[in-house]
Amino acid sequence: MSGTIAFVGLGAMGLPMARRLVANGHAVRGFDLNPQALASLAQAGGQACDNAAAAAEGAGTLLLMVVNAAQARAVLFAGKALAALAPKATVVLMATCAPAEALAIGEEVAASGRRFVDAPVSGGVVGAQSGTLTVMAAAPKETFDAIAPLLRQMGDKLFHVGETWGQGASVKTINQLLCGVHIAAAAEALTLGEKAGLDGKLLLQILGNSAAASWMLNNRGQRMLESDPQSSSAVDIFVKDLGIVADAGRASRVALPLAAAALQMYLAASGAGHGKADDSQVIRAYRALNGLS
Amino acid sequence: MSGTIAFVGLGAMGLPMARRLVANGHAVRGFDLNPQALASLAQAGGQACDNAAAAAEGAGTLLLMVVNAAQARAVLFAGKALAALAPKATVVLMATCAPAEALAIGEEVAASGRRFVDAPVSGGVVGAQSGTLTVMAAAPKETFDAIAPLLRQMGDKLFHVGETWGQGASVKTINQLLCGVHIAAAAEALTLGEKAGLDGKLLLQILGNSAAASWMLNNRGQRMLESDPQSSSAVDIFVKDLGIVADAGRASRVALPLAAAALQMYLAASGAGHGKADDSQVIRAYRALNGLS
Repeated sequence: MSGTIAFVGLGAMGLPMARRLVANGHAVRGFDLNPQALASLAQAGGQACDNAAAAAEGAGTLLLMVVNAAQARAVLFAGKALAALAPKATVVLMATCAPAEALAIGEEVAASGRRFVDAPVSGGVVGAQSGTLTVMAAAPKETFDAIAPLLRQMGDKLFHVGETWGQGASVKTINQLLCGVHIAAAAEALTLGEKAGLDGKLLLQILGNSAAASWMLNNRGQRMLESDPQSSSAVDIFVKDLGIVADAGRASRVALPLAAAALQMYLAASGAGHGKADDSQVIRAYRALNGLS
Repeated sequence: MSGTIAFVGLGAMGLPMARRLVANGHAVRGFDLNPQALASLAQAGGQACDNAAAAAEGAGTLLLMVVNAAQARAVLFAGKALAALAPKATVVLMATCAPAEALAIGEEVAASGRRFVDAPVSGGVVGAQSGTLTVMAAAPKETFDAIAPLLRQMGDKLFHVGETWGQGASVKTINQLLCGVHIAAAAEALTLGEKAGLDGKLLLQILGNSAAASWMLNNRGQRMLESDPQSSSAVDIFVKDLGIVADAGRASRVALPLAAAALQMYLAASGAGHGKADDSQVIRAYRALNGLS
């Protein structure tokens, strides 16, 4: 335990992460725009605050599990959470942001005398609840070492991926590149199968145990055969995340032809009104493109 | 046992497949243009023949494990192997062919009164040696049932994927679409990582155990970090197989944007002189494209 922890962003991921810290005996002060999330934190034993600056007041650590870099900036700078922190506090940005954004925010935080860790996560809601997230952290080694015990309470797969802010975001970006391309590839494969009159279930059985397998093929493939599956992660999440991939490629001058092609399919699916549907439903864009219903 | 088996195409896959049949007590007559392969079959207890028609003479089954559809046609029609078979013989095409080619060959074989099975395989040389290939067979049910016991001796994962010739080839085509896209996606991901200054080994460790994983990422990823890895399957195999994918998409009017983008990267790698290199070296095309050495 290292003093009070401020936790901003108590959504599907943030709330169970904050709850774990409370359960481990930490004093956690939270803020979220959603009063229901705040009430849940209070019920778990955390302290609900009226705004981000109140949560951050004198705290030694600020964890940001907001939606994107713009929200992180709003909390830290316009919302004055950064200025409210203890002078040597550590800010941990765990949202999925473009690498250049994570670096820029890190530099602004450092200019205030605080420490900064660029530490996005993967593993979904299940990982957040069970403390089995993967945490991809970039920070100077001393800063990383000091914060590592706290991060391990949320993610048992903790990696120090680099000393430069933005490198954590880069790993997450690359992770999302592969996830997004693999889902679209599975949809493309199943669409070709539908056109050939093949049985989708049999196709998944054959492919899922072969060199053609991917984690996403096995996880999302069955849902592609359902007309309206429950949504675990929406099409629009990949519109956002492959957008970050595209931004990262443009910022660092890297041609990413597969990610670029995959993004077009998520955009088409979202544009056709399926943005809130499960990301497996990117297959609807393939079907529409190819005259399949 | 159902009489003599003719086996044409004794390459890296065909020879161990034919050897297994000999070891199981079948009378196997083989042909290949490579005299060394023929000698290996004879040494294993098979019969080496001077040409495909001699191997097929009066045989009840002809297995074709040649390189492509053009070779299958050359053997069956110009090489007169089809006419040499017993009147009710079964021809099994196990090479990777475009679906339209498998269908056309099937129709010509049927016109001669013989039976035809479109049955490509996956699983590589290891699978061929151990009898653990995946066999994706399309044929009328009666024909499939009659040949299934023989096919199971080569592939313990035997699937009847449809009654129409070309559907076996379609499954194999879809399998290769995913394999080719996943290898290229892994290369694209690692290239973005190199540009971000990330450690490739650490990146593979993180991604290989996450939702971003694919069989190919875990199998080919390490080799992408080596400058000249041993070749298990060449870049030019995917120039061929994603070419078949592209042909299948054109023939059945299906847009396949990811496969099309991936093919360009294999073409670029081959065009730069890396066609014989391990297929993991498609990453050389990404590096060249992005100014990395």
